[in-house]
Amino acid sequence: MPLDSWSSLAAGEQLVLESLFWSKAASRHEIATRLRQSKSKSNAVVAALIAQGLVMEAGQVANGAGRPAEMLRISDNLGVLLAIDIGATSMSVAVLTPNLAILALHNEAVDVRDAQQGPAVVLARARTRALELLARRGKKAGDVLGIGIGVPGPVNFETAQLVNPPLMPGWGDFSIRDFLRDSFRAPVFVDNDMNIRAIGELRQLHRTVSNFLVIKVGTGIGCGIVCEGKIYRGATGSAGDVGHICVDINGPRCHCGNVGCVEAMAARPAVERMAAEAMERGDSEALRRHAQKEGVLDLAAVGAASREGDVVANRILQRSGTLVGQMLASVVNFFNPSHVFLSGSIVTIGPLFLAAVRQSVYQRSLALSTRHLHVQYSSLGDTGGITGAGVLAMQELLKSRSLR
Amino acid sequence: MPLDSWSSLAAGEQLVLESLFWSKAASRHEIATRLRQSKSKSNAVVAALIAQGLVMEAGQVANGAGRPAEMLRISDNLGVLLAIDIGATSMSVAVLTPNLAILALHNEAVDVRDAQQGPAVVLARARTRALELLARRGKKAGDVLGIGIGVPGPVNFETAQLVNPPLMPGWGDFSIRDFLRDSFRAPVFVDNDMNIRAIGELRQLHRTVSNFLVIKVGTGIGCGIVCEGKIYRGATGSAGDVGHICVDINGPRCHCGNVGCVEAMAARPAVERMAAEAMERGDSEALRRHAQKEGVLDLAAVGAASREGDVVANRILQRSGTLVGQMLASVVNFFNPSHVFLSGSIVTIGPLFLAAVRQSVYQRSLALSTRHLHVQYSSLGDTGGITGAGVLAMQELLKSRSLR
Repeated sequence: MPLDSWSSLAAGEQLVLESLFWSKAASRHEIATRLRQSKSKSNAVVAALIAQGLVMEAGQVANGAGRPAEMLRISDNLGVLLAIDIGATSMSVAVLTPNLAILALHNEAVDVRDAQQGPAVVLARARTRALELLARRGKKAGDVLGIGIGVPGPVNFETAQLVNPPLMPGWGDFSIRDFLRDSFRAPVFVDNDMNIRAIGELRQLHRTVSNFLVIKVGTGIGCGIVCEGKIYRGATGSAGDVGHICVDINGPRCHCGNVGCVEAMAARPAVERMAAEAMERGDSEALRRHAQKEGVLDLAAVGAASREGDVVANRILQRSGTLVGQMLASVVNFFNPSHVFLSGSIVTIGPLFLAAVRQSVYQRSLALSTRHLHVQYSSLGDTGGITGAGVLAMQELLKSRSLR
Repeated sequence: MPLDSWSSLAAGEQLVLESLFWSKAASRHEIATRLRQSKSKSNAVVAALIAQGLVMEAGQVANGAGRPAEMLRISDNLGVLLAIDIGATSMSVAVLTPNLAILALHNEAVDVRDAQQGPAVVLARARTRALELLARRGKKAGDVLGIGIGVPGPVNFETAQLVNPPLMPGWGDFSIRDFLRDSFRAPVFVDNDMNIRAIGELRQLHRTVSNFLVIKVGTGIGCGIVCEGKIYRGATGSAGDVGHICVDINGPRCHCGNVGCVEAMAARPAVERMAAEAMERGDSEALRRHAQKEGVLDLAAVGAASREGDVVANRILQRSGTLVGQMLASVVNFFNPSHVFLSGSIVTIGPLFLAAVRQSVYQRSLALSTRHLHVQYSSLGDTGGITGAGVLAMQELLKSRSLR
């Protein structure tokens, strides 16, 4: 019984599993090297893990002149992870393998800002979707090893509780953990939606990068921070709240009460508003055409017009990228990260936005901070939240050495 | 021989000494509690340290209804620390006790930006001053336990080497460590001047605060970062470079090539320039009078005029504080520290500057980031750099468990 064995993992077994998890896969030789153990000792632990069904062999990889190396990874037969990524206006629910492959995925609109919906309604929908997705893959609630959840507000990670979430009426006193644990009898881990993106990126990078940021540009603008290899949450859990950094002291008023916030000037709603205004002025035939075709002038329409070379759409996206880059320049001067990964709906619109962000960051940050700085789109794309929620669950399951 | 004993400190002895160092002083009971050891075990280690002359009794402290507790601290008879704080335009050299009391202190003007002076000239002067200060207190080079140095540029802490310092021609390839080690035969530790201020503050706070910033406003504007109880240096050692964060996209051009940098608009030179312009326009009788009295219209003169209630001086200091606060608001939204400590020559001018910074930070940062945020002047005053350099030396000496 793999599950029973897992619940009494020895420390040595835990180390091997964690090494395999963060590197995605490794040869016996690599495991021994990483753990600084003799090959015989490390191989014995691996053999025990394979015998228990916790680790599987995953094919051979050419190894220079020598024998091809057998790659190992955590067994996909252990069970599944549930990942829930709740944004301000949308929710994704997914079933993942322990190695973070997406088995089934569902997206739908929710509105956590709407007090009528509230946590019980939103989470009941998440639970229903999760059970449907499990059934679709022939799984049941009892197959769930752990549940990872991202929410768009500050979280006390220990208690899995939102702390005075500004956007989410009714969520502050609600126990997400209790609500879902009752249905699945699996451990529930809750974190801020940007923190789960950052932890997802950390695994994508095989934990080889220590100081980086993940920026999301969507309905709002947020930031996940990895500092010395760990998620940094700040003194009261609100670190990374970059959406209200001022980029223009004469800018428009933001809903937060201040003026010139980057979120108010550069996030998706601002892009769509600028596009609507341009269309109404009759400035862009391409924007009008795409709005008509798709029934709405949304970010996708602006992106489509931009890819056709529409000057107005390009100017709007460039302006957004420049402003995001201005905000990032401040943050880069202060934090000196080695990488900045951009995510959120804005990354789907093509390379122009990235080019504008880069130009603005490199122009406005000091040479010392940018000499080795990489600014790029997240390779996790729009499933970064889901992947991150799965990584969070798996990381915590491995840390606690037990499953239920 | 205390020094010889020290060089073979047991791990238990090291823990007691580190605990005493960071807390400044502690009773036997407090030591045992902190180290989670039995009183008898902990007392035995303390007794051995006292017998070796490494720890001394430092008087009794009332202890509620019970017996007064005998306080212990690191012995002041071990030797002395040398602390050197090199700024862009000034240098402080000091001799400190192992408990960071200043025995002798000397300040003088230097200019590290001047290629004619260069590291060999500046450091030779520092060495001469250090030997004079030692002699004044009846000490010699051989009494120096360790040397801590702060420099105004990015430092590779392991090699004690400046890395492409933008302001300091000739310092990049120069080994400060070798230069001073030859004269004093003591370990030399070099760090960025803001990092040493941050580590000084960390001891001032008895290591009870985990995430905070130290801001210096002087010739330039810099920031030291403590993250999860440790100095954070960034991916390439330039973290905390906040002087070139933009606070006005239509602001004046800075020497870095960008516009609206907070340093160009709010540091000491900007304050003095605004004051000179106001005086030339005949706007302020008080500024004219203080400039005449002191022969120069410097920050001290502006501060004196402000304390007399001069409206023009007040407006200038308020503007500087508001701009520094605007920069800080961005940083606070991103980093969510619990404390921000202000230091540098600007803190000598009175409470008005602090009030302006606070108002600006609280207005511009999100409520979540500022609910528990403290913004205050550093209690270390203008010896923060010297104290920090001493803490750095002592921390590293204790870490390495040996002196020479």
